[in-house]
Amino acid sequence: MAVKIVTILGSTGSVGTQTLDILAENLDRYHVRALVGGRNIALLAEQARLFRPELTVVAEESLLEDLRAALAGSNLACASGRAAVIEAAAMPVDWTMSAITGVIGLEPTLAAVRHGGTIAFANKEALVSAGDVFLRAVSEHGATLLPVDSEHNAVMQAMADNNLHAVEKIVLTASGGPFRKLSYEEMRAITPEAALRHPVWSMGAKISIDSATMMNKGLEVIEAARLFSLTSEQIEVVVHPQSVIHGLAYYTDGSVLAQLGAPDMRIPIAHSLAWPQRLATKAPRLNLAEVAKLEFFPPDEECFPALRVAREALLAGAGAPTVLNAANEVAVAAFLARKIGFLDIVSIVESVLTQLGAPPVLDLAAVLALDNAARDAATRLTAAKAA
Amino acid sequence: MAVKIVTILGSTGSVGTQTLDILAENLDRYHVRALVGGRNIALLAEQARLFRPELTVVAEESLLEDLRAALAGSNLACASGRAAVIEAAAMPVDWTMSAITGVIGLEPTLAAVRHGGTIAFANKEALVSAGDVFLRAVSEHGATLLPVDSEHNAVMQAMADNNLHAVEKIVLTASGGPFRKLSYEEMRAITPEAALRHPVWSMGAKISIDSATMMNKGLEVIEAARLFSLTSEQIEVVVHPQSVIHGLAYYTDGSVLAQLGAPDMRIPIAHSLAWPQRLATKAPRLNLAEVAKLEFFPPDEECFPALRVAREALLAGAGAPTVLNAANEVAVAAFLARKIGFLDIVSIVESVLTQLGAPPVLDLAAVLALDNAARDAATRLTAAKAA
Repeated sequence: MAVKIVTILGSTGSVGTQTLDILAENLDRYHVRALVGGRNIALLAEQARLFRPELTVVAEESLLEDLRAALAGSNLACASGRAAVIEAAAMPVDWTMSAITGVIGLEPTLAAVRHGGTIAFANKEALVSAGDVFLRAVSEHGATLLPVDSEHNAVMQAMADNNLHAVEKIVLTASGGPFRKLSYEEMRAITPEAALRHPVWSMGAKISIDSATMMNKGLEVIEAARLFSLTSEQIEVVVHPQSVIHGLAYYTDGSVLAQLGAPDMRIPIAHSLAWPQRLATKAPRLNLAEVAKLEFFPPDEECFPALRVAREALLAGAGAPTVLNAANEVAVAAFLARKIGFLDIVSIVESVLTQLGAPPVLDLAAVLALDNAARDAATRLTAAKAA
Repeated sequence: MAVKIVTILGSTGSVGTQTLDILAENLDRYHVRALVGGRNIALLAEQARLFRPELTVVAEESLLEDLRAALAGSNLACASGRAAVIEAAAMPVDWTMSAITGVIGLEPTLAAVRHGGTIAFANKEALVSAGDVFLRAVSEHGATLLPVDSEHNAVMQAMADNNLHAVEKIVLTASGGPFRKLSYEEMRAITPEAALRHPVWSMGAKISIDSATMMNKGLEVIEAARLFSLTSEQIEVVVHPQSVIHGLAYYTDGSVLAQLGAPDMRIPIAHSLAWPQRLATKAPRLNLAEVAKLEFFPPDEECFPALRVAREALLAGAGAPTVLNAANEVAVAAFLARKIGFLDIVSIVESVLTQLGAPPVLDLAAVLALDNAARDAATRLTAAKAA
C-alpha cells in the first residue's frame, strides 16, 4: 500500500483528534501534509511535533505568536488566519479530513475539493448550506466525497454492492438524544449542561446540542439527500436509542443492508481513511449478545419539530437549507451562551425561514450572503428573546 | 439486460416454488431450460406448462407415466429417474438453482458445476457432506457459488465491499426454533407436528426439524466455513428470535455489515437470481418501527447440543461432516416417522460420529461410500431405539 498524503482541517476538534489517533497507529501508511487547528494551541503544537506536517495553521489570527512559541525549536512552519487556512487546504493531498464545524469550514473544504482528491466529510453544515454549489465543485474537479457522519458513512457502506438504482429508501437512525422521554413542556427548562451530556456519543458542543433538539437529524436528512441523490420521502428517520445500527439501505428485492458498530467515531473515520480498503482499529467491537436488545421508535415530531422544519427547508430547496443552517448555528451559540432557552432554538430557526424563504443561491458568494442575512435575522430574534 | 437461461433442481419444493414465483414475474428476463421436481406431479406439470422448459424431469422413476399424462397435449419433453436428473442438470445454463434437499442433490449439483455457470445454492447438505470434493469441482470448472440460505446470503451481501481479508469474523443468527424456551427434559416429548411448526420461517420438513434441534445452525456453521474459508472460531452463532438480521460480517476497523429483511426466502432467492444486479420483488418490506425490538442471546449449547456436535465434526475435518450430515438425515427421517424421539436425533448423530470418526474422503466415490456407511450405522441405532 502506497503512503497516503493527508491533511486534517479541524485537527484539534473531536473528529480531528480521533483521526490523528488512528494515523498515529499507522505512521508507515500515512503522511500528514498540513494541520489546521482551533484555539487549543498546546494540543495543536503537540500534534505538529508528532506528525511533522509541512504547515501547521491556527485559524485565529491573534494566536500565531502563541503557536510559534509552542513550536519553538521544532523547525516546523506555521501560519494563522483565514487565508492561511485556505492555503493549507489547497495543498494537494490524497485525502483531506474536513472537520471544521459550521459554515466556516465551507471555503477551506472547497479549496480541498479543487485539488480533486478524496474529501472525508465531517462538516455537514457546509454540504447543507452550500448544497448545489458544493456538489458542482466536487463534480467539476473530480473529487471524491466520503461521508464521516456515522449515519451517512453507514449508508455508504450499505450501498457497497453498487446497485444504487435499486435503493428504494434509506433509514438514518437517531439515538433520540438526552431528552427522548421528556414532554415538550418539560424541555423548556433544559440547560446547556444537560443538553451537552449525550447519552451515547462523545462529540463536540455544536453537534451535541443539535442532537438534543434533533436538528442534527434534520441536517442529516438534507445531507443524505445531497450525498445520495434521494428525495425527502426516501430518507426515513428511526429513533434507535442503542445507536448500534447507524444507517440502512433498502433494496427493491426486499434486502436491507446496514452498518452496525459501537458508537465510536474512529470506526467511520477509519473507513473513510482506508476506503476502498479497510484498516485495523482498536475501536471496541460490537457484541450483540451483550447489547441484548435493539429498539426502534418512530420519531416524535411534536416534541422535536426540528425534523419537520428541516424537511420543509429541503422541500423548499434553493437557499432554504442555507438559511436553516445559519439560523441554527446562531441559535445554538445563543443557547450555549444562556441567552435563549432550549425550545427557542428551533422556533428561531423556523421564524428566520419564514422571514427569508428560499431565495436562489447560484454561487458561493450568494450562499455566503444568504448565510449572513440569516445570521443577522437570527441574531435579532435572539436578542428579542433575551430582552 | 440479456435473458438469463436457468434450470431449477427441486422445482416443487419450498425454495423451488418460490424461485418460480419470482421468475413468473420476470418472464422477459429469464428462460427456464430444465425443471427437476419431486413427487408432486400435478405441481410439476403446472410449472412446466407455464415455463415451457426444454426438459421436465421427475426424480422418481415410477412417476414417468403420471408426468406424461399430466403433460398430455403440451408438446413438452419429459423424463424420469436419477440419470435424467443429472442429464437435466448438465444442460448448460447461466444459472442453476440447486434446491434438492439432502445428499441426493449432490450429484445433480456437481453436474451443474461442471458446465461452469452460476449455482444458487440452497442444498447445504451437499456442501457439508462433500466439502473439499465439491469446492475443488467448483474451482476447476470456474463455477460461481451463490448461497441462498438466508444466513449465508446475508453474509455474502455483508461482504460486498470486497475486503474479505479484513473480515475478522461472521455471525449467523438463529431464530432458536420453536423450542427455544424449553428445558432439555421438556424436549423429550416433542412430536413431529410440534417440531414442524417453525415460529418464523415457512420451510420444508427436513430443515424445519433441523431448526428445532439447531442442527440446521450446526450445518450452517460448516457451510459457512467452506463458503467463506473461515475457521469455526470465526463463525459465531447468536440467537435472534425475530429473525430480522440474518447474518453479519465484522471488519477489522470495527464496522459490522449486516443484511436484514423480512423472513421471506424470496429475498435471498431474488438476490442470487439477479446478482450482481438486483431485481424487484413483492416480498414484504422490513418496518423497523413496527418490529420495535430486536433481541440477541448466546445459544444454549446444553439444551441444543447439535451446535457443539457440528463444530466438533468441522474441527475433526476429513469425512466427519459427511458422517454428521448422513446420520442426521437418517435420524430426522426416523423422527418424522415416529420411530425415535426428538432428543434421539442428535444423540444418534453423535454416536455415529464416535463410531466412524473422520476418515479421509478424497473423491466423490469416497464421500458417497462414507455417506452410506453412516446411514447404515444410523439406521441400526434408530432401530435399536425404536425396539
